[in-house]
Amino acid sequence: MKIAIFGTGMVGQALSGKLAELGHDVMVGTRDVDQTLANTTPHPYGFPAFSVWVKEHPAIKLGTYAAAAQHGEVLINATNGNGSLHALQLAGEANLNGKVLIDVSNPLDFSQGNPPLLSVANDDSIGEQIQRAYPQVKVVKTLNTVTASLMVDPQQLAGGDHHLFVSGNDAAAKAQVVAFLKDEFSWKEIVDLGDITTARGAEMYLPLWLRLWGALGTGVFNVKVVQ
Amino acid sequence: MKIAIFGTGMVGQALSGKLAELGHDVMVGTRDVDQTLANTTPHPYGFPAFSVWVKEHPAIKLGTYAAAAQHGEVLINATNGNGSLHALQLAGEANLNGKVLIDVSNPLDFSQGNPPLLSVANDDSIGEQIQRAYPQVKVVKTLNTVTASLMVDPQQLAGGDHHLFVSGNDAAAKAQVVAFLKDEFSWKEIVDLGDITTARGAEMYLPLWLRLWGALGTGVFNVKVVQ
Repeated sequence: MKIAIFGTGMVGQALSGKLAELGHDVMVGTRDVDQTLANTTPHPYGFPAFSVWVKEHPAIKLGTYAAAAQHGEVLINATNGNGSLHALQLAGEANLNGKVLIDVSNPLDFSQGNPPLLSVANDDSIGEQIQRAYPQVKVVKTLNTVTASLMVDPQQLAGGDHHLFVSGNDAAAKAQVVAFLKDEFSWKEIVDLGDITTARGAEMYLPLWLRLWGALGTGVFNVKVVQ
Repeated sequence: MKIAIFGTGMVGQALSGKLAELGHDVMVGTRDVDQTLANTTPHPYGFPAFSVWVKEHPAIKLGTYAAAAQHGEVLINATNGNGSLHALQLAGEANLNGKVLIDVSNPLDFSQGNPPLLSVANDDSIGEQIQRAYPQVKVVKTLNTVTASLMVDPQQLAGGDHHLFVSGNDAAAKAQVVAFLKDEFSWKEIVDLGDITTARGAEMYLPLWLRLWGALGTGVFNVKVVQ
C-alpha cells in the first residue's frame, strides 16, 4: 500500500520503518527536504536525526508534505500536534481529500517546561481541529496513547493484552484503521470511543501518561481496560 | 477511626457506607443539615437522596462541614470538584489543619451539556487548588479515577488486578493513605504519581474515563497498567 507519514521524528521513524519493513511503499513528508537531509544532529531525546536514520532504511522515500500527501493512499499524521494544522496546510487540501488520515499527534506544549501542558484541551482536540479544517478527510485518532516503539510492536508487552483507542466520525474509515492496526502491527484490543470529539479523551490522557512514565521509569507501558 | 466525609452524593454514600460497615466512626458533612434531611428526591443518576439512604445506615452521623471536619481524624473530600473549595471554606481552616485530606473530587462541569468539560485542567487541578488554599493540610489525591462502587470494592473486578493512583506532597501522608486503601478497601495495586501537581493527570483522565463508560456501557471498569 502507498502510505504517507507526515513527520520525521521518533514517531515518524517508528511508523515508517515498520511499514517499509512490511513491504509498503512509504513516503515520509517534511517541510523542507533539503533541510531535513542536512540536519544530522541527534534529537535531545536520544533518537537520531532522520537524515542519519534513513540511510539504514533506503526503501523509505522523503518528500515535501505535498509530495507525500499525493503519494499516500493512507495518510498518517505524526507531526507534533502544535504544528499539525500547518503541516496539513502545506500538504494541500486537494491531496488530502477523500483519504483516511490516521492522526497520531499530541498537542504537547513544552514552552512552560517539562512535563508539558497541552496546547489544546478540554473543549477541543487536535483530532477535531483537523476534522473541522478538512471535512472531506476521514480523520481517525489513534496510537497517540502509547510510545513509538509500542505503536508498531504491542506484543512486546504482555503478549499484546492491553488496549488502544480509536475515535472518528466515519465508521468505515475506523473499521479500516482497526483492521490496519491489527494486520500490520498485531494490535489485539482496540476500543472504539466514538466520534472524533472523543479524541479529547485520548489526548487528555497524556498528562497521566507522562506522570506514569516518570513513576515507572519507562515509556514502554500501556493500560489494559479491565471489566 | 474518626472519619469525616464531605459530600452526600453517590461517592459520599459509597465511602461512608463502607467505612461505617467496617466499624469506623463516620460523620458526613453537608452545607445545610436540615435541607439535606428534608430532601427526599432521588438523584437523576439513580441513587437515593442521602436522607432516604442514611436510614439504612443509622451509625452514620450527619453534620455541617465544620462539625464533620472537627470530628474527623482523617478527612475525605467527596464533594463535586467545582464546590470543593467552598465546602472546605465552610469546614474552616482551623478544623482542617494538620490533617490528611483524601481528595476524591473531579471538576466535572455539565453546564455545557454531557459529556461534561472540566472546570479546571491542564495547568491546574482541584487537588492543587486545595493544597494551595490549605498549605497545612496534607492533601492526597486518589480514588477519583474509578466509579463509587469500585472505590470501596476493587476486588469485584479481576480480583483487584487493576490500578489506582495517588498524588501528594507529603510522603508520610501518601503512605498512610495507601495503607488505608489497602487495609479498608483491599486495593492491591497503587501507583504513586508524585507530588500534588500530578493530580492534573488523574483529573484529566476523566474525559477518557467518561468516553470509555459510554463505549463499554458500564462505569464498573478500571485500567491496569501493563509493563
